[in-house]
Amino acid sequence: MAKRIITISREFGSGGRFIGEEVAKKLGIAYYDKNIIYGIAETSGLSPEYIRENAELSPKKGLFAYAFAGRDITGKSVADMVYEAQRKVILELVEKEPCVIIGRNADYILKDRDDVLNVFIHGNMPEKIQRICRLYNAEKQEAVKMMADIDKRRMANYNFYTNQSWGKASNYTLCLNSSQIGYDRCEKIIMECSK
Amino acid sequence: MAKRIITISREFGSGGRFIGEEVAKKLGIAYYDKNIIYGIAETSGLSPEYIRENAELSPKKGLFAYAFAGRDITGKSVADMVYEAQRKVILELVEKEPCVIIGRNADYILKDRDDVLNVFIHGNMPEKIQRICRLYNAEKQEAVKMMADIDKRRMANYNFYTNQSWGKASNYTLCLNSSQIGYDRCEKIIMECSK
Repeated sequence: MAKRIITISREFGSGGRFIGEEVAKKLGIAYYDKNIIYGIAETSGLSPEYIRENAELSPKKGLFAYAFAGRDITGKSVADMVYEAQRKVILELVEKEPCVIIGRNADYILKDRDDVLNVFIHGNMPEKIQRICRLYNAEKQEAVKMMADIDKRRMANYNFYTNQSWGKASNYTLCLNSSQIGYDRCEKIIMECSK
Repeated sequence: MAKRIITISREFGSGGRFIGEEVAKKLGIAYYDKNIIYGIAETSGLSPEYIRENAELSPKKGLFAYAFAGRDITGKSVADMVYEAQRKVILELVEKEPCVIIGRNADYILKDRDDVLNVFIHGNMPEKIQRICRLYNAEKQEAVKMMADIDKRRMANYNFYTNQSWGKASNYTLCLNSSQIGYDRCEKIIMECSK
């Protein structure tokens, strides 16, 4: 069955976002990444700035932050509200049109559909560091710190809300090491598997 | 860089072995699977029967079996000797000729080479069960039990000897869900990535 929707999960610095954007362009379908933030903000009633910082990442204070987050009388934390809004927006988006969605646990949110291709992009340390240094104008040491921080928080967010393990092959249809395979070939393989 | 060597790790019932054999045929290169056992037997001095049962799987008694295995004066268990022999045989094989190697932690054993394509094949539960029932002439319940047992022992063996997590995407160049992608397409993608 052809896959109308492609979700791209990715390690920070692996080029997953870039690969996803190129695939969307080449297939002529919609691309959702940061532009999803305004929908989540509107649905949740929280500010786009807050969503940008919190919708895909665990709180900075650490992996147990979810467990100790302040909760209202219904048992929900603000992070839960953001997640619920994100889930609702993603479920609505995919009804509207074929698209590529970057991150945001979309693979799990859409797990009951059979028209979704779930991709995980990862890479080798030297290539990821080099990319982060270039894109964020950062020194090597800073890039290593950013990468560790962002991936840890993505993982914590994913594991908490999905009860699955971020980066475990069996969660995804396709996992690709972009440093070894090359961005071009990754794009071709994703497009081939979406047919 | 072209990949002379392709290692295939796989979930039981995912068709990884079949896919690996087809790739070897189509590329016209050697294929190592059970035929590696005689080499390991010769190198270790243990019987082929013993190797067949122990060279890729943890002991049946459970995941902690390695820790409590009987060890000789050098601190080595029989399982360690088998693993050492397997490692030696694999390192020698890849010097000889381009090949496909199924399982046996070959991805980890060959991690210092840059001419190796590491693949992990997994699949959906219903398709894996169906395949096991057909190949082993088993009932569904029996197939589920076989699958759980073999994958648990493969995982324990891999995790113990590599200090990595079996089935974690970042250990492999390429991870493919054979039920979703289809065997033919898996073969094509592996061959494309070996170029």
